[in-house]
Amino acid sequence: MSEADPLHIAFLLFPGVTQLDLTAPAQVLSRLGGARLDLVAKTRDPVPTDAQFPLLPTAAFADVPRTDILCVPGGFGTVAAMEDAETIAWLKQVGADARWVTSVCTGSLLLAAAGLLAGRRAACHWASRDQLAFFGVEPVAERVVFDGNRVTGGGVTAGIDFALALTAAIRGEAHARFVQLSLEYDPYPPFDSGTPDRADAATLERYHAMVAQHAPGRREKVKAIAEALK
Amino acid sequence: MSEADPLHIAFLLFPGVTQLDLTAPAQVLSRLGGARLDLVAKTRDPVPTDAQFPLLPTAAFADVPRTDILCVPGGFGTVAAMEDAETIAWLKQVGADARWVTSVCTGSLLLAAAGLLAGRRAACHWASRDQLAFFGVEPVAERVVFDGNRVTGGGVTAGIDFALALTAAIRGEAHARFVQLSLEYDPYPPFDSGTPDRADAATLERYHAMVAQHAPGRREKVKAIAEALK
Repeated sequence: MSEADPLHIAFLLFPGVTQLDLTAPAQVLSRLGGARLDLVAKTRDPVPTDAQFPLLPTAAFADVPRTDILCVPGGFGTVAAMEDAETIAWLKQVGADARWVTSVCTGSLLLAAAGLLAGRRAACHWASRDQLAFFGVEPVAERVVFDGNRVTGGGVTAGIDFALALTAAIRGEAHARFVQLSLEYDPYPPFDSGTPDRADAATLERYHAMVAQHAPGRREKVKAIAEALK
Repeated sequence: MSEADPLHIAFLLFPGVTQLDLTAPAQVLSRLGGARLDLVAKTRDPVPTDAQFPLLPTAAFADVPRTDILCVPGGFGTVAAMEDAETIAWLKQVGADARWVTSVCTGSLLLAAAGLLAGRRAACHWASRDQLAFFGVEPVAERVVFDGNRVTGGGVTAGIDFALALTAAIRGEAHARFVQLSLEYDPYPPFDSGTPDRADAATLERYHAMVAQHAPGRREKVKAIAEALK
């Protein structure tokens, strides 16, 4: 892979992250060629994820005062991260002059809370997408949304599509096609239940019940965070 | 999620693993409901992956003498893992009475080296698939292959399709559809270059050049491992 034009990629890592929001685009972007990748958290201690195993940061906030590509994942821990002053301060700092400011899933709510998406169009996990509007961000029901140097992906698995699109924007389509082949990305979902439009009523109901149980009052908390910023 | 029928899931973790081979199915299977998931390595020290960040084991081989679902990922570190007696011994031990013996990507070569796929049909990363035949395993060019309680996935991103199919086999299709919706798995690859049939000649050539550079003599090494087992 090319060693020309070395880039630094910083993934925010926070407790309760949906680890695939981070690990999927990290896999794709690790093949960008000549790029250095960090998982950045408040400290270098292991960070619990939603998947019963922790992720280990490669750097703390203080180690990464700037980056070329900022990527922010989401998950049930997003709201707590939005309420954490140190996390928001780091996002503001590195987001201010990053070449690319990006997110996957509800990571776009974190970017919004850091003031990095004002007036922009953005993607988000389908179940939280409308909450972008609390921050003056236009929610877009697409897998990948480009708005200038802001690039946002939809829920969880959209991180693969997002990262391939970003790879093409940075290194060209031929490189993205090479990475796609290397990852054998020829998806074949066994069912057709990946969006609320296509899931049946029982599946949708089950999803909403799970959120109500695991993250009660989530929407109201996000709204309150947005209100407090005004 | 259901707490009935608790299952233990063990992912093998080894140096040079393609981390998405593990983290993608781990995300899906962490939503199986009532299951406990471990990343199992020789020791509990951080394990380097192919993506510039390590993964942290949650258990060492000695801590996990048995499991319900064994899942083995692949990557450029696969050959070294196949040559590691301790790793193969653990796979033989837990694979002998696991309810499900599974793999993603070149993880099927590791299962084969542990004698767990003899006479079976199996999937593998497209570029290494034919090497299964060295071990008396029938290579199958599909995303997900079921053969009794052996379930194998194709290259890297096939781990999502694999894990949803396994979820359906264990918890039923309704649960798999719920997990698919939660992960917004409605893939939309920006390019059509995910298999050797569809990639253009230049992309294929580039892939083979990368393998020759990063893993010279890989195919011959796998063949030699298989010969030594006879």
